[in-house]
Amino acid sequence: MKNLYFVFAFTMLYSCQENKSSLALDSKFSKEEKIDSTHIKTLFNSVLTEGKSYEWLKDLTSNIGGRISGSKNAEKAVYWGKELMEKASLDSVWLQPVMVPHWVRGEKEIANYSINGTEKNVPICALGFSVATPNNGVLAQVIEVKSIEEAQALGEKMRGKIVFFNRPFDNTLINTSSAYGGCVDQRVSGAATCGAFGAKGVIVRSMTNQIDDNPHTGVMMYGDLPKEHYIPTAAISSRAANILSDDLQNNPGLQFFFKQNCKTLEEVPSFNVVGEIKGSETPENILVVGGHLDSWDLGDGAHDDGTGIVQSLEVAYLFKKNNIRPKNTLRVVFFMSEENGGAGAKKYAELATLNNENHIGGLESDSGGHTPRGFSIDANETNTALLKSWTKLLAPYGLHDIDKGGSGADISPLKNQAVTLVGYRPDSQRYFDYHHTSIDTFDKVNKRELELGSASMASILYLMDKYLFTNSPIKP
Amino acid sequence: MKNLYFVFAFTMLYSCQENKSSLALDSKFSKEEKIDSTHIKTLFNSVLTEGKSYEWLKDLTSNIGGRISGSKNAEKAVYWGKELMEKASLDSVWLQPVMVPHWVRGEKEIANYSINGTEKNVPICALGFSVATPNNGVLAQVIEVKSIEEAQALGEKMRGKIVFFNRPFDNTLINTSSAYGGCVDQRVSGAATCGAFGAKGVIVRSMTNQIDDNPHTGVMMYGDLPKEHYIPTAAISSRAANILSDDLQNNPGLQFFFKQNCKTLEEVPSFNVVGEIKGSETPENILVVGGHLDSWDLGDGAHDDGTGIVQSLEVAYLFKKNNIRPKNTLRVVFFMSEENGGAGAKKYAELATLNNENHIGGLESDSGGHTPRGFSIDANETNTALLKSWTKLLAPYGLHDIDKGGSGADISPLKNQAVTLVGYRPDSQRYFDYHHTSIDTFDKVNKRELELGSASMASILYLMDKYLFTNSPIKP
Repeated sequence: MKNLYFVFAFTMLYSCQENKSSLALDSKFSKEEKIDSTHIKTLFNSVLTEGKSYEWLKDLTSNIGGRISGSKNAEKAVYWGKELMEKASLDSVWLQPVMVPHWVRGEKEIANYSINGTEKNVPICALGFSVATPNNGVLAQVIEVKSIEEAQALGEKMRGKIVFFNRPFDNTLINTSSAYGGCVDQRVSGAATCGAFGAKGVIVRSMTNQIDDNPHTGVMMYGDLPKEHYIPTAAISSRAANILSDDLQNNPGLQFFFKQNCKTLEEVPSFNVVGEIKGSETPENILVVGGHLDSWDLGDGAHDDGTGIVQSLEVAYLFKKNNIRPKNTLRVVFFMSEENGGAGAKKYAELATLNNENHIGGLESDSGGHTPRGFSIDANETNTALLKSWTKLLAPYGLHDIDKGGSGADISPLKNQAVTLVGYRPDSQRYFDYHHTSIDTFDKVNKRELELGSASMASILYLMDKYLFTNSPIKP
Repeated sequence: MKNLYFVFAFTMLYSCQENKSSLALDSKFSKEEKIDSTHIKTLFNSVLTEGKSYEWLKDLTSNIGGRISGSKNAEKAVYWGKELMEKASLDSVWLQPVMVPHWVRGEKEIANYSINGTEKNVPICALGFSVATPNNGVLAQVIEVKSIEEAQALGEKMRGKIVFFNRPFDNTLINTSSAYGGCVDQRVSGAATCGAFGAKGVIVRSMTNQIDDNPHTGVMMYGDLPKEHYIPTAAISSRAANILSDDLQNNPGLQFFFKQNCKTLEEVPSFNVVGEIKGSETPENILVVGGHLDSWDLGDGAHDDGTGIVQSLEVAYLFKKNNIRPKNTLRVVFFMSEENGGAGAKKYAELATLNNENHIGGLESDSGGHTPRGFSIDANETNTALLKSWTKLLAPYGLHDIDKGGSGADISPLKNQAVTLVGYRPDSQRYFDYHHTSIDTFDKVNKRELELGSASMASILYLMDKYLFTNSPIKP
C-alpha cells in the first residue's frame, strides 16, 4: 500500500505542477512578449490575492439587490456606483443624465388551469414592458406553437385565444448563448405578432437550458403594433411549459388563466456612472470598459450584470494597484437601462459624438461571471488579427477562444471601422440557469471565477492600450 | 429606442451564432478528420439530449450518499454500480474482489479554546486513518508552522504540544490542483513528522482556496513511525485557521483542545465494479475508463468522484447508443478505495498482469464534474504527440489544454511505455470549495457541465480506439 501511495503522490504532484515556463519565461516569446507576459501575470496574481470585486458584488447584491431601470433601487445603485468609483481613486468620476423607461411588475402574477378536476398552479412572470391583463385576468383556450412563423400562419385562428410559444433551447449548441439567440425572438416578438391577430394573451417558454420551476423574465416589444392591440404576455417556467404541452395533447380545449398588473409609467431621470484614469501619453484616445448597472427585478442581478460592473471597475483598480499607467484614457462605465432598451448606451454614444471624443476601443462584460474562456472581437480585419495574435499570451489563463463576433449591447453603439470592440466571454454553461430569474443571486458567483474574469479583462485592455491605435497601424 | 434594439438584437444574434463550420465541415480538416469530427459531434449531441449521467448521479448521491471504503454504503454502492452497468447493456459485468481498509470517524469531533475568557468552538474533522485522541481529548499549547521542514526544525520543542500546520493554498496558481499539490504534504505527513518528536497532536489547515467554515478531511499516513508514536490529527476550517493564527499572535500560550474517536478497524472484503464492451477487431487490447466508487464520509461524494464514475459509464452508454463499436475492448471500472490507499487500483493492475491482459490505454475522471478544459497525457513521446494532434478536433468543445502530465491515481499502476494514460481535466476553480467536505453534494453539479465531460471522454476514447496501438505506430 505504501508503494502505491508514492505512485499516487507522485502522479498527483506531477500532474499538478503549473507549467510556469509557459508564462513569463516562454522561450518562444519575443522580448516584448516576455514583458507583456510578466505584466499579465502580475495582474492575475494581484486579483487572486487582493481582489475587490467579490466584496463589491456582495455589497451591491445584498444591500441593494434587484435594480430595474426607473426604480428606487436603480437610483440607489447609481449613488453606490459613484461612491465606489470614487473610493477606487479614479482620476475623475461623474454622472451622465439619461431618461430611462419605468416599467413595474405590480403584484405577483397568477396562472392556473384545471384538468380532470385538478387545478394546476403555473409559475409565470410578466415580461418586461408587457401590459397588464384586465383586472379579472385572461381566461382562454391555448394554442401551442413553436415559432413566430407558425403563429403568423395561424392568422385569424388565434383570435380570442392564448398563444403559447414553446420552442425549447437547442441543447446541442455548446455555447448556450447560441441557444438563447435561437429562441429569444419568441419572447421579444411573440405578443406583437399575436396581438395583430386578436389573440388575448401570449405565454412564452422560459429562456433556459434547464428544466425547472423558475420563470425567466426579459424584454418584449410591441413594435409598430397600434396600442389598442397590445396584449399581455408572460414567461412560463420550462417544467410548466412541458407539462402544459403534455396536457394540451390530451385536452386541447383546456382553459388557461393568467393575471398580471404590470404597467409602464412615465420615463424617469437616471444616470450612467462614469469614471476614468487619464491617459499618460494620448489622453484624448479613450478605451472604455463596462457593464450594466440595472438588472431585472426578480433576483439580485448578480450574474446579470453585477459581475460585469464590478469586473469593469476592478480593471481600473488593478491598473492603479500595480502602477500600470495607461497611455490612453481608461474609462469605466456602469451603463443604465441595458435590460430596458439601452437608453444609457445610446446616451453614452451620443455624448461621445457631441463631445468629439475619440474612442479607440471598448470592452464589455455582460455574459455572467463564470470561468474565463475568451473574447469576442468586433473590429476591422487588421485589429481582429492583432487581438487574435495575443492568444498565446492569454491562453495560460484559459483564454483560448479569441474570435470574431459581437461585443455587447452597451458598447456596440460606438461601432465604426476605427473602433475595436470586444466582448468578454466566460464559460456559458450555467448562465441561463439564473438569467433574469429570482435565483440570480450572489451565492451563484464563485470568487475566483469572478476575479479571473477581472484579470482577463485587465490583460486584454493592457494589450489594447499598448498596441491599439485609431485606424490601427500595428505597432511593433 | 427601437433603432437601438435592432443593434442590440443584431449584436446578440451575431455573437451567438455557433461557428458550425469549425465543427464537421472545417475545410482545413482531412477526410479522416471530417469523419472523426462528425462522430465527435454525434457524441456531444447525444449526451446533451439523451444523457443519463445526471440522473445516475442523483440516484447515487441521494439514495446512498457518502461511501467510504469498508462502510455499509460502499457495499451498497458496489451493488448499485453493478446493477447500473447491467442496465446499460454492457457485454459483460463483473466484480473484482479486493480487501480494503476500514476506518471509521466515530462521534463528531470537538475542538475549542478559550481566549480572553471567551470559548471559541472550532470546526474540525479527523483526517482519514488518524488515531483517536485519549477519551478526554488532547489539551495543549499550540505551535504554528508553515511546512514540514519548519516542523522538523522544531525538534524537541514540539514535545507535549499541538503542532498547527497553516500553509495556505497559493491562490496565484491558476490551476487549483497545483495549489493543492503544494500544500497536501502537511495533511499527509504532518502527524508522522511530529509524532516522531513527541507532539501530542497535529491540526492541519483545510486544503482549499476558500475562506470558510468547512473542514476538509483526506488521507494521512503514519509511514514508518512506530505505532506507539501515532498521534491524532485533524483538519481545521480555513477561517478557523486564520482566526487561530491571529489569536496565537496575541496569546502564544493558549491551550487548544480537541477530541475525536475515529479508529481503523480490520480490513473488509469489497470490490471493483467492472464492465466492458468487447472489441470488434482486437478484443485482446483493452482501453480502460474509470473513476472511483468510494468517497469520503462527510458529504455525498458528488464531485469526488461520483461524477467520474457516472461519466465513465456514460462513455460506454454513448458508444452503444450511437452504434460506435470499438475495435478494442472498452472497459469501464468503478475503482474501490481510491481515497483510502488505492487498494482497488492496485488489485486491478495485479489482475491485469496475472491474466496477461493487454492494456493499450486508460482514461480517468477524478478531478470533479465541472466544465471541460482538456486532458493530461502520461504516455511515450509518440503517443503524446498523437494525442496533442487531436486538439483541433476537440477545441470546439472547450478542450484546449491537452498537455503532458499525470493521469490519475487509479489507472497509473498500469503505467508502462506502451500504455497511454490520460486524465480528464475539467475546470478546477470550484473543485476545492467542496473537496472532501460535507458540502460535496449533488446540487454543486451542473447537468450540462457533467454531460459535456462524458462526451469529452467518449470523444478522446473514440480517437484512442481508432488510432492507438500498442507500441504506438501512428496509423494514418
